[in-house]
Amino acid sequence: MSRWAPDARERLVAAAFDLFEEHGYEATTVAQISERASLNRATFFRHFADKREVILAGEDALSDLFIEGIRSADSAADVYRCLRSALECAAQVMTPQQRVTAGRRIAVVAANPELQERGELKFARITQAMTTALRDRGIEELAARLGAEIGLLAFRIGFERWMLADDSRPLAALALTALEDLRARAHHI
Amino acid sequence: MSRWAPDARERLVAAAFDLFEEHGYEATTVAQISERASLNRATFFRHFADKREVILAGEDALSDLFIEGIRSADSAADVYRCLRSALECAAQVMTPQQRVTAGRRIAVVAANPELQERGELKFARITQAMTTALRDRGIEELAARLGAEIGLLAFRIGFERWMLADDSRPLAALALTALEDLRARAHHI
Repeated sequence: MSRWAPDARERLVAAAFDLFEEHGYEATTVAQISERASLNRATFFRHFADKREVILAGEDALSDLFIEGIRSADSAADVYRCLRSALECAAQVMTPQQRVTAGRRIAVVAANPELQERGELKFARITQAMTTALRDRGIEELAARLGAEIGLLAFRIGFERWMLADDSRPLAALALTALEDLRARAHHI
Repeated sequence: MSRWAPDARERLVAAAFDLFEEHGYEATTVAQISERASLNRATFFRHFADKREVILAGEDALSDLFIEGIRSADSAADVYRCLRSALECAAQVMTPQQRVTAGRRIAVVAANPELQERGELKFARITQAMTTALRDRGIEELAARLGAEIGLLAFRIGFERWMLADDSRPLAALALTALEDLRARAHHI
């Protein structure tokens, strides 16, 4: 068992999903995940706070990408252009390989109410972080809060379409289309 | 101790908040709350699943009121008018007396991350329930999802303003004003 395996994180994720599918999420232990990945428990805990985080760590990464996208938007960008930048930034890391992992992830979460709750919580935190990032650009409070809700909803809808799609359109295109769809409806509320 | 005290629920809530303020939320037990209310634990559990629910049961009632408001809107109502109806229905139960309880509640939740998480979760469920209620009226998927987000955000903003206000404007008026404010911003996204 190498403590310094450079691909330790990916191996732990793959091992965890194999075990979740074989025995169920509840019945799988951190010890079993570590063993399957040929790593020790200490290595597991260097990468994840607990078993749940193997499933949900992606949401934290997502939050960081949204913020990065909002910050890097053109200095004259309005809310809409900040949201486009956030979606493009977040979606670019979603490779076809990750679409496979995402499918496995959705199946595990769908079978576990506690994970669904945790996921909703992470989404609430992403919305708060996006609101702050928009406000930090000088965007007024209510526009920032509304923009954060619409931006996250666009990502969620784009992601759902990406998972359902039988073609290979990248997530970024689908998320930006979802933003346009929501924008058209927002103009008529 | 009367098991059938008609005001048992209100007495339990009042006793719970007294104890939360005296000893903190974490340190207070269901046994202490029941004793302070001169009721037994069995009565407590007829009204609340656990200590947490004393704080958060209001969100479930809120969800029911939003749904009732959406269902009872005029048959020709569009998303906007459904949201107005939902906000009016939900806000009408918020009396000046409940504004006092809400203030105590906010203080307890602010000091407890677990309660904050639970609260976010309840909001996510309210959004889902509102989306379903809008869809059940024949409103198209994306408009329903966007409408539910905007409706809940309007309530939250109206509620925040209600708590900060030093006048006695009813919550309904503040929530409807927040909806107009969000609508104006939605038209320019």
